[in-house]
Amino acid sequence: MPDEKILLYGGKKAEYLVTFEPGKQIQTHLGVLTLPDKLEFGARLETHLGRSFYILHPNTRELSMRVKRTTTIIYPKEAGYMIIETGIGSGSKVLETGTGSGALTIILATIVGKEGKVYTFERREEFFNNAIKNVKDVGLDDRVEFFHKDPAIEGFGIEPVDAAFIDVPEPWTLVKPVYETLKPGRVWVSLSPTIEQVQKTHEALKETGFIRLKCVEILEREMLIRPGKTRPKERMISHTGYLTFAWKVEV
Amino acid sequence: MPDEKILLYGGKKAEYLVTFEPGKQIQTHLGVLTLPDKLEFGARLETHLGRSFYILHPNTRELSMRVKRTTTIIYPKEAGYMIIETGIGSGSKVLETGTGSGALTIILATIVGKEGKVYTFERREEFFNNAIKNVKDVGLDDRVEFFHKDPAIEGFGIEPVDAAFIDVPEPWTLVKPVYETLKPGRVWVSLSPTIEQVQKTHEALKETGFIRLKCVEILEREMLIRPGKTRPKERMISHTGYLTFAWKVEV
Amino acid sequence: MPDEKILLYGGKKAEYLVTFEPGKQIQTHLGVLTLPDKLEFGARLETHLGRSFYILHPNTRELSMRVKRTTTIIYPKEAGYMIIETGIGSGSKVLETGTGSGALTIILATIVGKEGKVYTFERREEFFNNAIKNVKDVGLDDRVEFFHKDPAIEGFGIEPVDAAFIDVPEPWTLVKPVYETLKPGRVWVSLSPTIEQVQKTHEALKETGFIRLKCVEILEREMLIRPGKTRPKERMISHTGYLTFAWKVEV
Amino acid sequence: MPDEKILLYGGKKAEYLVTFEPGKQIQTHLGVLTLPDKLEFGARLETHLGRSFYILHPNTRELSMRVKRTTTIIYPKEAGYMIIETGIGSGSKVLETGTGSGALTIILATIVGKEGKVYTFERREEFFNNAIKNVKDVGLDDRVEFFHKDPAIEGFGIEPVDAAFIDVPEPWTLVKPVYETLKPGRVWVSLSPTIEQVQKTHEALKETGFIRLKCVEILEREMLIRPGKTRPKERMISHTGYLTFAWKVEV
Repeated sequence: MPDEKILLYGGKKAEYLVTFEPGKQIQTHLGVLTLPDKLEFGARLETHLGRSFYILHPNTRELSMRVKRTTTIIYPKEAGYMIIETGIGSGSKVLETGTGSGALTIILATIVGKEGKVYTFERREEFFNNAIKNVKDVGLDDRVEFFHKDPAIEGFGIEPVDAAFIDVPEPWTLVKPVYETLKPGRVWVSLSPTIEQVQKTHEALKETGFIRLKCVEILEREMLIRPGKTRPKERMISHTGYLTFAWKVEV
Repeated sequence: MPDEKILLYGGKKAEYLVTFEPGKQIQTHLGVLTLPDKLEFGARLETHLGRSFYILHPNTRELSMRVKRTTTIIYPKEAGYMIIETGIGSGSKVLETGTGSGALTIILATIVGKEGKVYTFERREEFFNNAIKNVKDVGLDDRVEFFHKDPAIEGFGIEPVDAAFIDVPEPWTLVKPVYETLKPGRVWVSLSPTIEQVQKTHEALKETGFIRLKCVEILEREMLIRPGKTRPKERMISHTGYLTFAWKVEV
Repeated sequence: MPDEKILLYGGKKAEYLVTFEPGKQIQTHLGVLTLPDKLEFGARLETHLGRSFYILHPNTRELSMRVKRTTTIIYPKEAGYMIIETGIGSGSKVLETGTGSGALTIILATIVGKEGKVYTFERREEFFNNAIKNVKDVGLDDRVEFFHKDPAIEGFGIEPVDAAFIDVPEPWTLVKPVYETLKPGRVWVSLSPTIEQVQKTHEALKETGFIRLKCVEILEREMLIRPGKTRPKERMISHTGYLTFAWKVEV
Repeated sequence: MPDEKILLYGGKKAEYLVTFEPGKQIQTHLGVLTLPDKLEFGARLETHLGRSFYILHPNTRELSMRVKRTTTIIYPKEAGYMIIETGIGSGSKVLETGTGSGALTIILATIVGKEGKVYTFERREEFFNNAIKNVKDVGLDDRVEFFHKDPAIEGFGIEPVDAAFIDVPEPWTLVKPVYETLKPGRVWVSLSPTIEQVQKTHEALKETGFIRLKCVEILEREMLIRPGKTRPKERMISHTGYLTFAWKVEV
């Protein structure tokens, strides 16, 4: 059994994602925590300064957002939407490019499970190596195949897939290789920060046998629920990127 | 093998989700379509009036949104976010209440897969029966257990689960039963349209051993990408509900 | 003294903007209202069916939004923002083009007052005539000069102004004429629905001696405050246009 | 003639609002600027390090946002909307409470002009004194009357006004005094950060002879228009407050 990740929670600004080891000591800014001999989720621990921490089961947000980052990463609000719109689930086979820091790889690997497969492509070596480490670190590498190559030049060279997740600066260069690898009737999704990227991608998709194009932004707004003082948070992230969806058909 | 759903796409206002049968005739407002003998996704068909349709593989949005509705349903933008925040994936065991029209049941069943399980509870008989039909209709009932009862009164009576999805008018009445059924360190999520529901739910969660509460809204804004005329769509849905997340710990 | 406008309010879907006349009869879908002999704002009236109406003093939103429309009009959320960003107030002299239905003309005329001046330009005759009627109808024509011409071709031919309000499909064609008419150090604002219009306008502004460019969208979200059922409205207008601001300097 | 404010603009992070004086030296982080003998808006200056600055005519945003702050202030996006919804313009007589730092006072004074009047009330002495300085500093005090008192306790004691602008923590305490001072058929507007404040205010307004209540939020989203890289700004202010509007009628 692989080492398990736990989320140590001691308050809003005291969160630590660590690998569980019996008796391990964790330095926190609220004091030193000593992990118990046996992992029990939900349990309360105390630092040597008497501050409380709880052992939480990390959700997919924590596992994906807390990777070692060498790139910007895809946010949960977009990732969740992409899952529903591509229709993937347990057992799906999907391709992803670029791997980046592996944040989306971790999300996809969680969704497709052991019966599924994530084929992920990264052309830059330092990203490639970091992403492998990140995915192994959370124990999900058994369902992921990592490729260190540029599919815009070399193609994908894999079996037909149920969905394609594209997060590269020039998605339009991948429209043809994806068309050849994606199963007919299935969905392309790409994430791009700028309008011009979206425009070029749409053009390439329409020329290459994709239909039913859709472009959306997803916004997440936090509400603070405090007795007598309920209100939205004062600041928010107002843009991560535009999502483009398209369906492959026969031409 | 169960009958397969297909999405017939003849343009923005000509979309039909139907069960594939060889040679079946489909009435559309663009003419009559005759389905082929063999299902080929991505294939182009023509109505008797010469209008084109394509056979698409329905995504989770289409499968869940096009159910026969007896209730309001959870939208993809919220459902996707809930999946990432609860941390569920292939193999997870989850509870859902109320079943409603089964839209979220379909989404959860897609995610947890055959190795997973969705326990879903509905107290109103007409919703219960309609939801079973809807889930069966898309062939996902093998991993779903339907309960016709009110867990606020009778409890859940199931094995410990990895996540709890609550979509009822009075979520606070379910905090205790969920606390007893949810595995420690795992996540509660509820969806409520009004602030007062959120406030009461937060209060009950905090009193009952849940921590790390968070409340968010998810907004989806469509962009129209048309050569020389790129702009956001003029109208949008500005509110479906507030999502409340909370982690169960030992008290 | 000119005839005065009143807003008859009998509930959310029973609002009538009319010109006050003593004893006048108004057909409403809640019955016939007979206006009193003397205008008293805030007074309650009853229809012949016994339904209540109140006489409200129309605000600038009502006066501008309820014009007879031959064009799309500028919304209060954008108009208010433009006023603050251009720095206009009582006594300002401003130019506007195109006049359209006169909705923004009414707003500007309210702000600049009798000591100020609105020079407004419209090239299409049917819009021009309708706008004059609309502005006269609310009694604000004393501070407005209407020009039936195309300033992109003929120039403005007016005194230097404190601000320029541009609402035409091709704002970039007006950058040079506006540069010649706007006082140095003062603000241009244009409203455009599409990204491409904004991009072309920005390019022209930067080439012509405008600096400190800014582009914003303004969103208005209504909250429904009902005892026990407080929540945002379910639908909203998500796009009317992008506002572009720029300051004229010496080149 | 009063000293005039100028906005010195040397780029996004080099903006200075100063009072013009011939030959005055201004320390900027891009070097020392020497103001010319005669004020010419739009003119280009150079620092002793050769960096360019332009003399801009400050708009209402700059004049109101750059006051010396002893309190949070009302933002232009809300202020502009309030102007349109209250229907004020040149010549209007309005009341404001609390004065705070005088930011909204400056905006209102700009709009109502010399023919109009702003009656502004502040109970805390340090705010009162600072606000007077701020309004005098931009030369708009000729149309403003400052009151150092608490109208919730002492009432307003002024002539009937065309609109009431309420920015205090407990707006509901002012509903009755405002009802007595506002002209019938005219508009109350209050700004409150929390839902609970809004709820209490609505309740008091409905009990006291106000109708046609409306609550909105105004959001401002900036777009970055850069050749080939157009996109929304990554972060935004997502909440300043809820605006509540209500019309006074006879009871």
